[in-house]
Amino acid sequence: MHVVMTSAGIGRIEDGGVAVLDAPYPDPTAVIEATGSLDALAGAKVVRRVPLDDAGPGLLAPLARPRALWGVGLNYRSKAELTGRPVPDEPVLYLAASTSACAPGSAVRLPAAETAQMDYEAEIAVVIGRTLDRAAEREAWPAVAAITAANDMTARDVMKRTGAPVLAKSFPGFTPLGASLLGRDAIADPGAIGVRCRVGGELRQDSSSADMIFAIPELLARISRYAVLRPGDVVLTGTPAGTGQDRGDFLRPGDDVRVEVDGVLPLTVQVQA
Amino acid sequence: MHVVMTSAGIGRIEDGGVAVLDAPYPDPTAVIEATGSLDALAGAKVVRRVPLDDAGPGLLAPLARPRALWGVGLNYRSKAELTGRPVPDEPVLYLAASTSACAPGSAVRLPAAETAQMDYEAEIAVVIGRTLDRAAEREAWPAVAAITAANDMTARDVMKRTGAPVLAKSFPGFTPLGASLLGRDAIADPGAIGVRCRVGGELRQDSSSADMIFAIPELLARISRYAVLRPGDVVLTGTPAGTGQDRGDFLRPGDDVRVEVDGVLPLTVQVQA
Repeated sequence: MHVVMTSAGIGRIEDGGVAVLDAPYPDPTAVIEATGSLDALAGAKVVRRVPLDDAGPGLLAPLARPRALWGVGLNYRSKAELTGRPVPDEPVLYLAASTSACAPGSAVRLPAAETAQMDYEAEIAVVIGRTLDRAAEREAWPAVAAITAANDMTARDVMKRTGAPVLAKSFPGFTPLGASLLGRDAIADPGAIGVRCRVGGELRQDSSSADMIFAIPELLARISRYAVLRPGDVVLTGTPAGTGQDRGDFLRPGDDVRVEVDGVLPLTVQVQA
Repeated sequence: MHVVMTSAGIGRIEDGGVAVLDAPYPDPTAVIEATGSLDALAGAKVVRRVPLDDAGPGLLAPLARPRALWGVGLNYRSKAELTGRPVPDEPVLYLAASTSACAPGSAVRLPAAETAQMDYEAEIAVVIGRTLDRAAEREAWPAVAAITAANDMTARDVMKRTGAPVLAKSFPGFTPLGASLLGRDAIADPGAIGVRCRVGGELRQDSSSADMIFAIPELLARISRYAVLRPGDVVLTGTPAGTGQDRGDFLRPGDDVRVEVDGVLPLTVQVQA
């Protein structure tokens, strides 16, 4: 199942186009909260079909405002190697404010009063389908509803100054999510999902979940020791080497940032003054 | 306006009893999200009246699952003095998972696999009524809908081990909220709200918002520089001296913990093995 949100309702991506559905749910999060997955959309009646090119620019946020937006620091070996930081024994976990979520295609304001170091982080985002409470690793992946792409934008100087990821990552628009949701049934191996970032068309990050320090099931199980994960909650799974921080080069107004996650429609936003 | 949630619907506290209302909202959060305050309940028709003693044990969570649950480290001068920590220049802000919220009267499980140092923190909780985005201090208090009592429970050893408030404070049930919501109109001075904690009837914390390092309006304005606060979001405003950590004495199964905030119905929970 490959799902988008359009102004006409929930859509399935199929045959290279969008099948707009007659589904008894306002948005994909409601489907996941009610049923634990996106599978219920398989049988929904198609109202009309539109080409993806036409739908693309008008796609809405597939996850409008998640209740929880978890993230993890240093979770790619490439990033640990590049920065010389030791591989952590435990994931460095944080929550970002879900008011930072924004739709694909958004203009994201550079909060110049607070930061001179706005940075991108291409990530695989996991959407929880069923409650995870002190779950074992083997229980974690089956409880996932879908994945999507995320840009876990970070104000590096705010991070340095406050030591608080929640402050560096919660500015309005700092968490673009989308453009589509790829159901778990469509993912052969959660340990082999490609993730890339392009800024102004230039490839900056290019990796895969195979390089993660804490693989997705382990990461979810670890979070669930401390907090219950509920349907619709989103977990950002870390970013590979190649961020602006790694290059000493931060985002500027006008920059287009595009995150690609295998099987998911690309997630592009533009930085705005 | 002084409001509770009952199994029969939203109630107003008046004349020492609960007036159960015929209101077109499922719960108080919905009233706040739709109207910015609790004032709309003033004109609601009374369906029936029950004595408070009868309603007390059956009160539901007035804020079932807030979208954001912000908190602040060290924010009382008494606590800074007692612990010898310097008074911070900037508030130490965090988000807790809102799955940690629980209703007054709940049994809260001691997560013994993760902590041997479960602790209470009596706090004044502020419920946002209107959006705050890079707000000035003078704009902050008028945007508040209500206050309530909170117990910002913390696993001290998890905090020490991980350095992450979000992990130490997000266990299921670790954020009791209630038992009632006191509308902003009923609060003469946000800088003079008493807050107390009793464990097994013994007074452990006894202070007032007058002792805060960052007063409520300043705290809200500071958060809003980093993240947008939205109607229904909850901000926990710090705890005074007298926690278990200060005494070297932590919570045990069977302990009754009662938080009192001036004007708000007391918030009691029991620790469970």
